Amino acid sequence: MSELRHVVLFGFKEGTSAEDIRKVEEGFAALPSKIDGIKEFEWGTNVSIENKNQGFSHCFLVTFEDEAARDAYIPHPAHQDFVGVVRPLLTGSLVLDYWSRPE
Amino acid sequence: MSELRHVVLFGFKEGTSAEDIRKVEEGFAALPSKIDGIKEFEWGTNVSIENKNQGFSHCFLVTFEDEAARDAYIPHPAHQDFVGVVRPLLTGSLVLDYWSRPE
Repeated sequence: MSELRHVVLFGFKEGTSAEDIRKVEEGFAALPSKIDGIKEFEWGTNVSIENKNQGFSHCFLVTFEDEAARDAYIPHPAHQDFVGVVRPLLTGSLVLDYWSRPE
Repeated sequence: MSELRHVVLFGFKEGTSAEDIRKVEEGFAALPSKIDGIKEFEWGTNVSIENKNQGFSHCFLVTFEDEAARDAYIPHPAHQDFVGVVRPLLTGSLVLDYWSRPE
């Protein structure tokens, strides 16, 4: 069955404290309990040995129930509050959504 | 249970033919049948409405049995052959591996 995946990569500014990074990890992990329509959620930090992560240290993988859930998530106040907290800490972020294949 | 995920993003050069892109998609999708230790494989093309995909159009998500499988995958001839075919077509690629949390 095809799933709607939402891939989010974060890279943190040099000097960001471990505590601030932990708050971001916990803040993201709290979103599924605040916003409806999130079917699966997982995340982790880069352990690749290929050195092709382009400065991104964190990957969050959100699976939505459907497109409507994804569309409601983006402007949701809990999500926007989180974005406001995390944005000043980041060198960059990357977002790519896809419907998984094979179906 | 924690899983070892291997996230690969591709962006194609402007003018890359649909046929060449299809060959890359099929070539990647064929790797799990050629290389041991791949537990799950899925992929898809960007449908995000946030415009934060930084030129990447394709996401491939490979789940390895363990770290040894990941380490064997990278230099595997079938993988290296595939890399040789795809590299000239790309503006860029990004690779990030993570152990999924929560465990």
